[in-house]
Amino acid sequence: MAILTLLTDFGTDDYYVGAVKGTVLRLAPGSLLVDLSHDLPAGDVEGASFLLAAAAPSFAAGTVHLAVVDPGVGSERRILVAAARSQLWVAPDNGLLTPLLDDARVWAVERRDLFLDAPGSTFHGRDRFAPVAAFLLRGGDPAELGGAVEAPVRLQLAPPRRSAHRLVGRVAHVDRFGNLVTDIPAAWLGARRHETRIGAHSTRRTAGYYAELAPGEAAVIPGSLGTLELSLNGEDLARRWGVGRGDRVEVALEGEGPRQKL
Amino acid sequence: MAILTLLTDFGTDDYYVGAVKGTVLRLAPGSLLVDLSHDLPAGDVEGASFLLAAAAPSFAAGTVHLAVVDPGVGSERRILVAAARSQLWVAPDNGLLTPLLDDARVWAVERRDLFLDAPGSTFHGRDRFAPVAAFLLRGGDPAELGGAVEAPVRLQLAPPRRSAHRLVGRVAHVDRFGNLVTDIPAAWLGARRHETRIGAHSTRRTAGYYAELAPGEAAVIPGSLGTLELSLNGEDLARRWGVGRGDRVEVALEGEGPRQKL
Amino acid sequence: MAILTLLTDFGTDDYYVGAVKGTVLRLAPGSLLVDLSHDLPAGDVEGASFLLAAAAPSFAAGTVHLAVVDPGVGSERRILVAAARSQLWVAPDNGLLTPLLDDARVWAVERRDLFLDAPGSTFHGRDRFAPVAAFLLRGGDPAELGGAVEAPVRLQLAPPRRSAHRLVGRVAHVDRFGNLVTDIPAAWLGARRHETRIGAHSTRRTAGYYAELAPGEAAVIPGSLGTLELSLNGEDLARRWGVGRGDRVEVALEGEGPRQKL
Repeated sequence: MAILTLLTDFGTDDYYVGAVKGTVLRLAPGSLLVDLSHDLPAGDVEGASFLLAAAAPSFAAGTVHLAVVDPGVGSERRILVAAARSQLWVAPDNGLLTPLLDDARVWAVERRDLFLDAPGSTFHGRDRFAPVAAFLLRGGDPAELGGAVEAPVRLQLAPPRRSAHRLVGRVAHVDRFGNLVTDIPAAWLGARRHETRIGAHSTRRTAGYYAELAPGEAAVIPGSLGTLELSLNGEDLARRWGVGRGDRVEVALEGEGPRQKL
Repeated sequence: MAILTLLTDFGTDDYYVGAVKGTVLRLAPGSLLVDLSHDLPAGDVEGASFLLAAAAPSFAAGTVHLAVVDPGVGSERRILVAAARSQLWVAPDNGLLTPLLDDARVWAVERRDLFLDAPGSTFHGRDRFAPVAAFLLRGGDPAELGGAVEAPVRLQLAPPRRSAHRLVGRVAHVDRFGNLVTDIPAAWLGARRHETRIGAHSTRRTAGYYAELAPGEAAVIPGSLGTLELSLNGEDLARRWGVGRGDRVEVALEGEGPRQKL
Repeated sequence: MAILTLLTDFGTDDYYVGAVKGTVLRLAPGSLLVDLSHDLPAGDVEGASFLLAAAAPSFAAGTVHLAVVDPGVGSERRILVAAARSQLWVAPDNGLLTPLLDDARVWAVERRDLFLDAPGSTFHGRDRFAPVAAFLLRGGDPAELGGAVEAPVRLQLAPPRRSAHRLVGRVAHVDRFGNLVTDIPAAWLGARRHETRIGAHSTRRTAGYYAELAPGEAAVIPGSLGTLELSLNGEDLARRWGVGRGDRVEVALEGEGPRQKL
């Protein structure tokens, strides 16, 4: 059974998600739909990009991902289909697919015959994205959808960087528990001593999991995406420190390097 | 595979939705369940009526819709089953099905043998609506459920009206982005010049989609349900203007009528 | 088709639920996933325990329930699998399964070969619980997962008690409508006169359903779980009375006992 994941900023208190699902199931009966989230802040392309890249590796090869966070709906922005990591991806050309573009083949949808003849130009999720996803779920060839795209829009996010004594990155995501997910690979720190700083706050503690920590004790933890996270045990560190997505993270490395165990 | 949509005011942080789904799947195994929404304000029959009518056309013929927003649960209010638009509908007799009643055959469920023998009279979603939906999902004939209903309860909503120089309607829905969805058919305005007013606020701008608009510029946009919407680009117009569902919308038409292009 | 219910405190605005579902579907293709809730307050084991026990009886025999509210993730707390009530249950050993333990066979998962080799120790939902659930959904024998557990962790909740003239219990749950769900069996009250008190508030009214009640009139209602509930009609009693989960409920019985009808 073909699987489609859905990621939008449509919310769950409106008819938008239902209309997209009804359209997909009408055009590709028997598809299995899995919600990633519909609760992204309106227009939060970067947040969508993060969640999609984080969830997708858990899904089987052949999964189709549909992500509609699309402030440019109705305009001439393109609808992209990408083949990457043995999965297919459908999203507006606004940077949402940035994390996988390096290894992707990308096409811009030109098959207007697939689009629904429906009122208005404000609901491409139902009228354009859903039929394109259904085409792929029915086994359609993405190369038949339109021409190859050489330079899709990309989010301009500076990658993390490292030197002998310092790692610098950013808070890539704040989760619902208030954990600060950074973009710094956990392998860069390894077992070295460190002082990790965000704004006026810092910690020298490393932990493997939350329950190790004393109340109020912030720590760096190797996270579930392979990057460093900063966390408290049972408390919201983002709120405690007043930190949000995009804030700079700086890790001062101490000692001789990875061979030194704590 | 038979499809059931679900629309309730049960919220997603309780056991109610799970119990309804478990019951349906126990009594009609293999059904495909699709959530429309469970986040309606408690008892918001009008909101449920709007969302259901808006989402349903996207679903295939044969889909069963179950809508339980039911402040009269446990009382003698009837449970209705309707056949309309090649789909089946199950809801309390409280006006929820109003938008489709003109073209529907409607029955009141009298088959108490279908109801579950469960504690209390406060959870008909699980104990009565779910088994009725399962009966339909198994291919049961709605006419076997009870007698025909001549005068189901209807919401008393004044329809939009038009004259040569004026369109009058109401805000039928405020979506999560703060767009004001009216009940005025977009075809009534066409390409005419206008001044559209809600309370103390007004706009003369027409647009096709959000991204056309300058910051802070409100416009009338042909919406995805075939009616006029009022919107800002990337901002919440409902909040900006202090407008809510039910507010009166008045469109003063200018010029000679539909032949005049803007 | 094997059914898996999911109950977590992961929220619906992150990638966590999607990653769990993707993993289950990758390892046990064709499974039918049903969300109970993902909106529990972070770490609310007692709330999870209540919702799971409340929803599960509606599901068919053979259903697998996966509940991950797990503040001890990463530590040495065990992962339990239980067989009870003709269904299977997967949860951390933190009391979440308390309501069904009296009649359950319970095992602690020791099959580390099932666990995923994934970064970090903070997302056992994806890396350990999901593969264990998939093992069961594929028809695996729970006894092959590890040794029997004699004394799983239990929540310490005093059971309700009764005497000739008094019933005493607690508010076990506040639902989204503000109904106060107690743990006192409705059969203990039957049709007797009573004065039911929570803190400084009380009512002598009994009702069968909400719509019987005049505005502002609180009543005891036999609830959908077989226990007494306290409710207003169309209003939030929990807020009105300032009552929350765990608050003491005292029912003073009047008259001669159950043979006396109101």
